[in-house]
Amino acid sequence: MGVGKPVAVVGLGLMGQALAGAFVRAGYPTTVWNRTPGKAGRLVAEGAAVADSFEQAVAAASVVVVCVADHDVVRGLLRSVGGGLEGKVLVNLTSATSAQMREISGLRGVGGYLAGAIMGMPQGIGTAESLTLYSGPRSVFEVHEEVLRVLGEAVYLGADHGLSSLYAGAGVSLMWSVLNGFLQGVALLEAAGVRASAFVPFARQNIATTADWLAGYAEQIDEGAYPGVDATIDSHAAAMGYLIRESEANGVNAELPRFVRGLAERAVAEGRGRDGYAAMIELFRRP
Amino acid sequence: MGVGKPVAVVGLGLMGQALAGAFVRAGYPTTVWNRTPGKAGRLVAEGAAVADSFEQAVAAASVVVVCVADHDVVRGLLRSVGGGLEGKVLVNLTSATSAQMREISGLRGVGGYLAGAIMGMPQGIGTAESLTLYSGPRSVFEVHEEVLRVLGEAVYLGADHGLSSLYAGAGVSLMWSVLNGFLQGVALLEAAGVRASAFVPFARQNIATTADWLAGYAEQIDEGAYPGVDATIDSHAAAMGYLIRESEANGVNAELPRFVRGLAERAVAEGRGRDGYAAMIELFRRP
Repeated sequence: MGVGKPVAVVGLGLMGQALAGAFVRAGYPTTVWNRTPGKAGRLVAEGAAVADSFEQAVAAASVVVVCVADHDVVRGLLRSVGGGLEGKVLVNLTSATSAQMREISGLRGVGGYLAGAIMGMPQGIGTAESLTLYSGPRSVFEVHEEVLRVLGEAVYLGADHGLSSLYAGAGVSLMWSVLNGFLQGVALLEAAGVRASAFVPFARQNIATTADWLAGYAEQIDEGAYPGVDATIDSHAAAMGYLIRESEANGVNAELPRFVRGLAERAVAEGRGRDGYAAMIELFRRP
Repeated sequence: MGVGKPVAVVGLGLMGQALAGAFVRAGYPTTVWNRTPGKAGRLVAEGAAVADSFEQAVAAASVVVVCVADHDVVRGLLRSVGGGLEGKVLVNLTSATSAQMREISGLRGVGGYLAGAIMGMPQGIGTAESLTLYSGPRSVFEVHEEVLRVLGEAVYLGADHGLSSLYAGAGVSLMWSVLNGFLQGVALLEAAGVRASAFVPFARQNIATTADWLAGYAEQIDEGAYPGVDATIDSHAAAMGYLIRESEANGVNAELPRFVRGLAERAVAEGRGRDGYAAMIELFRRP
């Protein structure tokens, strides 16, 4: 039946099941395995094979996709198979820190290895909505890119196995920041009877405008010079005071504005008041 | 010389000077006044008249634009002229809270009155880069829209004089959130030798993707139901833990991720763990 390289999917949580389902439907010979049995029913009906052990799953495949609970489980599995991964490619999609992703590459018996971070939800897997970030040897990514694209968009970041986790962390940091900034605005406007939906176009315009500044700020950060040509941290800190008072006066939560001003005030205390906002990177760089 | 309604600009800080300069260059008969003299030199050279008092500035104009240090100064000035503003339109562009902007409309002698919030810097005034938000009676905005557009884009928000300050606060809340989320990402990636500029395209993609969700979240907020169809607050909170560990392990500041997780954990403690992220609005709504 299969038309491509044999694939194993290890770990059949919601995400693992979505990954295996995408491979099966794309016609790849797919073997699945889960520590606790009984999760493969639908996948078997669609054409997947079930392995009795991790070792058997590995033996059946040339690409071994691992998506389990955490890094400790990955490490335990890899130690259990010894040299069984030689000649195979390990694609580790388990949520893990950059250091953990790097640690895998040093384990005995691990050959070709890509670290990956899925930026999205199980229901998006196998569609253009899905984006997965990969890091590791470029040649390994390129040879297996076609298989990886079964899952959705596949972006290669570089040889350092830690990069996929770091970029994923940077991405979610932005996501939560945008969402929380939006919620603060919604809460403020609700106090004047404005509905959240009415705020959306204005919010999107503000987000897009700010996004347009990032390239300029990044250049300042890379050069280590932060001229306050648009607005100084001093003036930002003053405006943050208005947002705090506005939030308090309207009876909404002022923690986010206070947190934001606390950072800016520390930058001012460190003599950065006349610099532009990009100088705040100095605070973000250290604990 | 003038082609339009006579305008007065009161307050000649950097922003006031930019406002007056834009009116003068657009050919409007412009009278300026500042509490402490000596700031009008360049404007006079361009064709502005200088008033000896606030009262005289008001008398010379049909549109009185006020952009002074703070609300107390505005209030003091308005009290000093008694009924002098009758038949004039007051455009208050002074930084102020929504309550302060509303207070002005109740002062004796204030006739047509628009509250405004400038979303940008003095150097953008008079260009398409500049956006100013207005609130107050629609008829007053519409009659004076042409004058206001001299300053740049002019957006009318509604009759409640507090709206311009509230929208401005919501806008800067988003701005600082995007910038801080970006800086957290930059700090993380720098730890792996990735330059800020290399992060920008990925950052912008993440921002745009998140912005695409806002309409859906806003609908949930307006309806008061937050089904966790994409991801639950429980799963967000778990992912926030990774970002904290990643930040700590790489020696970068973890305050923002910890702040973000602190909010999510409170939502979980309040029984919102199975809801989607939009349910976080419940936290933002109260102190």
